[in-house]
Amino acid sequence: MNRKKTGKGQLIVLSGPSGVGKSTVIAELMSQRELFFSVSFTTREPRSGEVDGKNYYFITREEFEGMIARGELLEYTQYQQNYYGTSEKLLQEKLDAGIDVLLDIEVEGGENVRKKRPDAISIFMIPPSFEELSRRLHARNTDKEEVIQGRLARAREEYKEIPKYDYLVINDRVSNAVTEIEAILAAAECRVAKRIHIIEGDNAL
Amino acid sequence: MNRKKTGKGQLIVLSGPSGVGKSTVIAELMSQRELFFSVSFTTREPRSGEVDGKNYYFITREEFEGMIARGELLEYTQYQQNYYGTSEKLLQEKLDAGIDVLLDIEVEGGENVRKKRPDAISIFMIPPSFEELSRRLHARNTDKEEVIQGRLARAREEYKEIPKYDYLVINDRVSNAVTEIEAILAAAECRVAKRIHIIEGDNAL
Repeated sequence: MNRKKTGKGQLIVLSGPSGVGKSTVIAELMSQRELFFSVSFTTREPRSGEVDGKNYYFITREEFEGMIARGELLEYTQYQQNYYGTSEKLLQEKLDAGIDVLLDIEVEGGENVRKKRPDAISIFMIPPSFEELSRRLHARNTDKEEVIQGRLARAREEYKEIPKYDYLVINDRVSNAVTEIEAILAAAECRVAKRIHIIEGDNAL
Repeated sequence: MNRKKTGKGQLIVLSGPSGVGKSTVIAELMSQRELFFSVSFTTREPRSGEVDGKNYYFITREEFEGMIARGELLEYTQYQQNYYGTSEKLLQEKLDAGIDVLLDIEVEGGENVRKKRPDAISIFMIPPSFEELSRRLHARNTDKEEVIQGRLARAREEYKEIPKYDYLVINDRVSNAVTEIEAILAAAECRVAKRIHIIEGDNAL
């Protein structure tokens, strides 16, 4: 009996305010387990240090609207005049191969994914306090004060969506957040919906 | 911020066929973490080695029917002419004190608890194969063959209830089953419903 991976991979939706540290936590998770990070497509400009094909696929507005027209996106949203979206094809190939897929998406995208994929595991990540979020955004030293204030205002709006998520993970330390997500994924492997086929296999009656 | 235990304890329902090894797994879990094992009341005769107040509270039929009449039971059921039931009072005191409570109950009792306590985490434990269950029941060497056949027939009926549970844990090795239950409990601590108060505390907006 294959204990660890049975059937398809799990689709994981991870959201959280800008500055909470999602990228660091994801990198640590990916160093510990097989996990496919679904890179989003966006029409926004790359920030300093961002790499095309790693942080996002940076494409033009025309290219993005072509993907919409061809129905290639699992979800997409607009934020500050830019498109953000997820290609469905590559993601589905990984899930079919039994590989877990993680989406780092905005709350609107998260909601759209949950509607299309009710089995998705949705996780919202918060900092230990709102003051700490402000501190992290300032420490990042990449944004002007008005941009930071915009991100904090945005975070306040995002927090209202937390009740729609399955799990709330606190990133006080990266190792704690990673441990919590590992437990969430391990528990999800034990869900009856994920394992019910077992009693039709070795446990057949 | 209190990370590990926030608010009330979690109510855990554990079911599974006779012989699957629930008692061994529970003992190992209790050696690793704070967990209150809710001892059931029953009118059946103690089996060899069973201790009153540890495995069950062994009481008379008249005493049990008194508890029913006084509304003291969270759930109760009858099986092979005997009553089995759970006292609500002690269990609630532990949950209120932030202590997780584990109920080892039959599938009918599990269903009754889920109805009254929709937040309960329900886990069904199976052996790695049905042949292995038969082997374990014979190895226990406490029951006559006809009793064992009755337990196996009963297991077949219980398996039909698995889709009603949240999680399916496989007891191929005690350490594996314990690890899975630990992950399920750790994930449950991260459920939004369990943590939503946090964003009204340190993360207040």
